[in-house]
Amino acid sequence: MARNTTISADPNAPPITRILADFVATHPSRGWSDAVEHEAHRTFLNWLGCAVGAARHESVRASLAAVQMLQPAAQATVLGRAERVDMASAALVNGIASHTFDFDDTHLKTVIHPAGPVASALLALAEVTGASGRAVIDALVLGIDVSCRLGNLMYPDHYDRGWHITGSTGSIGAAAGCARLLGLDPARTAMALGIAASQPVGLREQFGTMTKPLHPGAAARAGLMSALMAQHGFTASARALEAPRGYVQVVSTKADWREATEALGERFEISLNTYKPFACGIVVHPGIDACAQLREQGVRAEDIERLELKVHPLVLELCGKAEPADGLAAKFSIYHACAVGLIHGRAGEGEFSDAVVNDPQVVALRRKVRATVDTAIAEDQADVRAVLRDGRELHLFIEHAIGSVDRPMSDAALEAKFHGQADPVLGASRVQALIQACWGLGGASGVGAVVQAAGA
Amino acid sequence: MARNTTISADPNAPPITRILADFVATHPSRGWSDAVEHEAHRTFLNWLGCAVGAARHESVRASLAAVQMLQPAAQATVLGRAERVDMASAALVNGIASHTFDFDDTHLKTVIHPAGPVASALLALAEVTGASGRAVIDALVLGIDVSCRLGNLMYPDHYDRGWHITGSTGSIGAAAGCARLLGLDPARTAMALGIAASQPVGLREQFGTMTKPLHPGAAARAGLMSALMAQHGFTASARALEAPRGYVQVVSTKADWREATEALGERFEISLNTYKPFACGIVVHPGIDACAQLREQGVRAEDIERLELKVHPLVLELCGKAEPADGLAAKFSIYHACAVGLIHGRAGEGEFSDAVVNDPQVVALRRKVRATVDTAIAEDQADVRAVLRDGRELHLFIEHAIGSVDRPMSDAALEAKFHGQADPVLGASRVQALIQACWGLGGASGVGAVVQAAGA
Repeated sequence: MARNTTISADPNAPPITRILADFVATHPSRGWSDAVEHEAHRTFLNWLGCAVGAARHESVRASLAAVQMLQPAAQATVLGRAERVDMASAALVNGIASHTFDFDDTHLKTVIHPAGPVASALLALAEVTGASGRAVIDALVLGIDVSCRLGNLMYPDHYDRGWHITGSTGSIGAAAGCARLLGLDPARTAMALGIAASQPVGLREQFGTMTKPLHPGAAARAGLMSALMAQHGFTASARALEAPRGYVQVVSTKADWREATEALGERFEISLNTYKPFACGIVVHPGIDACAQLREQGVRAEDIERLELKVHPLVLELCGKAEPADGLAAKFSIYHACAVGLIHGRAGEGEFSDAVVNDPQVVALRRKVRATVDTAIAEDQADVRAVLRDGRELHLFIEHAIGSVDRPMSDAALEAKFHGQADPVLGASRVQALIQACWGLGGASGVGAVVQAAGA
Repeated sequence: MARNTTISADPNAPPITRILADFVATHPSRGWSDAVEHEAHRTFLNWLGCAVGAARHESVRASLAAVQMLQPAAQATVLGRAERVDMASAALVNGIASHTFDFDDTHLKTVIHPAGPVASALLALAEVTGASGRAVIDALVLGIDVSCRLGNLMYPDHYDRGWHITGSTGSIGAAAGCARLLGLDPARTAMALGIAASQPVGLREQFGTMTKPLHPGAAARAGLMSALMAQHGFTASARALEAPRGYVQVVSTKADWREATEALGERFEISLNTYKPFACGIVVHPGIDACAQLREQGVRAEDIERLELKVHPLVLELCGKAEPADGLAAKFSIYHACAVGLIHGRAGEGEFSDAVVNDPQVVALRRKVRATVDTAIAEDQADVRAVLRDGRELHLFIEHAIGSVDRPMSDAALEAKFHGQADPVLGASRVQALIQACWGLGGASGVGAVVQAAGA
C-alpha cells in the first residue's frame, strides 16, 4: 500500500541490542586511553558547571516545584495492593497493571486502549488533590477524546510505522485529562499538551514483553508530570502538535487534521470504546461467543461428537495452535478457546491458566474442534455447527461478536468480568463495594471510596 | 535532498494545540449525553478491574520494586540548590538545568549534547547506591558511547525529521550508563536498553521553550527508571533497537548499522565531545574568539574606529540582529557578540544579560562592527580587521574557533567557564572545591565530595 512506502523494514539488521548490551556490561573498567579518561572528566566538569549555573533559572524552579508535588512519597494507592507510592509512580504502576493481561478497553477505530494512560493518571492525581468524582469523569471523557482524536488523525500510518498507538497518543491524552482535573486555563493546558507531545511512548516490537503494558503506564506518568509542570509555569511550543517539526508530523506520515476538530464537543470518542469479554486475541472472540451460547442452550462437553467452525482467515493465521502447551500458547489457539467457551462459559485469564490448558476434559474437547477458513466470514463473525453424539446438529451464526461496537457487553457482563478479575485479589464482597463506587463516581465527593476498596 | 522526501512538512496545519487546549479547559462539566456519561463509567470500571486483576503479576511486582527504589523521597541533590528530591526527579531537574542555557557539550558529528541525559542519571543514581567515582566515569564513557553511536547510525535523517536527537538517543544512553553502574549482566542490560527504547524524548519544534532542556532531563529520568526496572526483572524485546518495528526503524529512515559496532571498545565517541566557550549560537563563536584575541593584544574599546568582519553566510542569516533590545535577542547578534568579546574577553551567560546589552560602552562598540558575508569563510572561521583611531590596522584570521574539535578549550578555559557559571550560585571557594572534586572523580570513593560541594 502506498501509505507503507516510507516505512523502512529491514529484517536483517544485526543484533545491536545484544552487542551493545554485552559491551556495556563487560567492557573492562578504564579500558581506554588516558585521553579518553581525561575527556570523560572534562565532560563531567562541563556538565556540572552548566547545571549549577542554571540552578536559579525559571525552568529549574518550575520543574522542581512539579516534582515536589510528588512528596510525601506515600501519597497514592497501587490498585489491588497494600503498598502506597508517590502519585507519578502510582500512575505508572497502575497503568502497567491495567494492560498486563491485554484485557482492557479498545477504541476499535484506532486500536487505542484509551483508559490505561488517562485513568491511571487521573486516579492518582485525584487521590492527592481531593478532586470530586464529577471532575474525574469530566477529565476522563476529555482526556480520552484528545488521545483518540490524535489517533484518528494519524491511524493507520502511525501504527503501521511501528508505534504502539496507546502509549504514543496516551501521554497527550493523560496530560489533557490532568490539566482539566487541575483546572488549568487554556494557555497552561496548551503547555501541558506541548510538554507531553515531546514524550510519545511505545514500540510494537515490544508486544509479548512487559514493556507492552509499560507503554500506557509510562504515558500516564508522562502526562501527569506534564500537567504538573505546566501548572507551575513550565513552557512548551504552543504549536507542539501541528508544527512542521511538531508531534504529528514527526511521528506520522498521515495527518488528517479534520479529525482533531470535527464535531468537537458534540461527538465523543469514548462513545466508541469497547471492552474485551475474553482474555485473548480479538479474532477468536466470535468462536468463544458461539460456544458459550451453545452452553447456555444446555449443550455439555460430553454431548459433543465434533464442533465445526467456519472462520475468518486471520483466525488460523494468528490463532491456529492445535495443541497449546501452556496458558500463554493457549491464547493463540482457537481450539482451546472454543473448548473453554463451551465448558466454562467464559474465557477470562483463569481459563488461560496452565492448569485449565492441561485439564483432560478441555484437552479432549479441543481435539473435537475443526476450524476451516471461509472468506465470506467477517472478522467479528463465526459460523459454528455442533454435531452431537446423539446425532443431533445445532447451528449458530454469530453476526457480531459480543464486545463489538454493534453488540456491546451489558453492564451485568462487565460486572461479571470485573468479579472474575478482582475477586481472587480482593474477595467478592470488597469487589462488590468497589463496583458500586465506580458506578457512583460521577456523583461522589472524591475518589476515596474507590481507592479504599481497591487498595489491598 | 533525497533523504528528506519522506518528511511531511505541512506549514499550514490548523492550530490544533490551541483548539484542543481550549476545548479541554472550557468544555462544560457533563456537557454530553447520558449515554456518553454512562460509557465513561463503564470505561472506568473496566479499567479498574483490569488493574486490580493484575495486581500480583510479575510486571507489577517488578515495576513496583523499581519505583520503591525512589524512597525515601529526599535521597538526591538538586545541583546548586538546597532542596533534595527522589533520584528520578533529581535526574530530571539536573538534566533540565544542564541544558537550560544551551551552553553544555556537543558531539559535533550528531549535534547530540551527550552529558545531559547520561551524567544527570548517573550522579543521582550514584548518590543513592554509593557507587565509586571509578564506576561513575566508566558508566559515563559507555553510556555516551551508546547514545552517540545510535546518533551516528541515524544522523542526519532522524534529526531532519524533527527529533531533538539529544533526548531521543539520550534515554537509551542513560539506561546503558545506569545499567553499567548497577552492575547488571548483559541480559538485563539488554532489557534496560529495550525498556528505554520505547521512551524516546524530544521534538525540535520545542526549541526556544523550556521543553528543549526538558528533553535531556526526561531522557535521564526514563533511562534511570529503565535500568532500575530491568534490575528488578522487568522485560523488553531483546531486539528492541534493531527489529523492523523497533526503535531505529520507527524513529529514523536512515539506519547505518555499522555505526553501532565499528571499532566498538576501541574508538570512544566521548573523544569527539566539545564544549561551548560562549553562551550563544555556535556560528558567532569565531567572531567572539577573534575579538577576545584582540583584547589580549591590548586593544581597548576606545581605540576602535571600526571592526570589519568577513563571515560565513549563516552568521548574518541566523545572527544578524543589529540593535538587540535584550539579552535573549543579543544571542542572535554578531554585533553584540563581538563587542562583549573585545570589552569583556568572554561571552558567558552574564555577557548576554539585559544590563550588559544596554551598557552604553557595549552599544557604542557594536555600532562600529561591520559584518559582510564571504563564501570563502568556513563555519568555524572568521576574518577580522580592526581599524584603530590612531590609524593603525590589526588583522586576525581565525582558522578554527576555540571549542571546536580542532582547537579544543584548554582545561584552564573549562575551569574559567565553570567559575563564570557557578560562582554567582555557590561562591568562588566552594566552586574551587567542586572543580577539584570533578577532576578527581575517577579516583574517588564515591560522588560525596561532588554533591556536598554542589548542593547549595
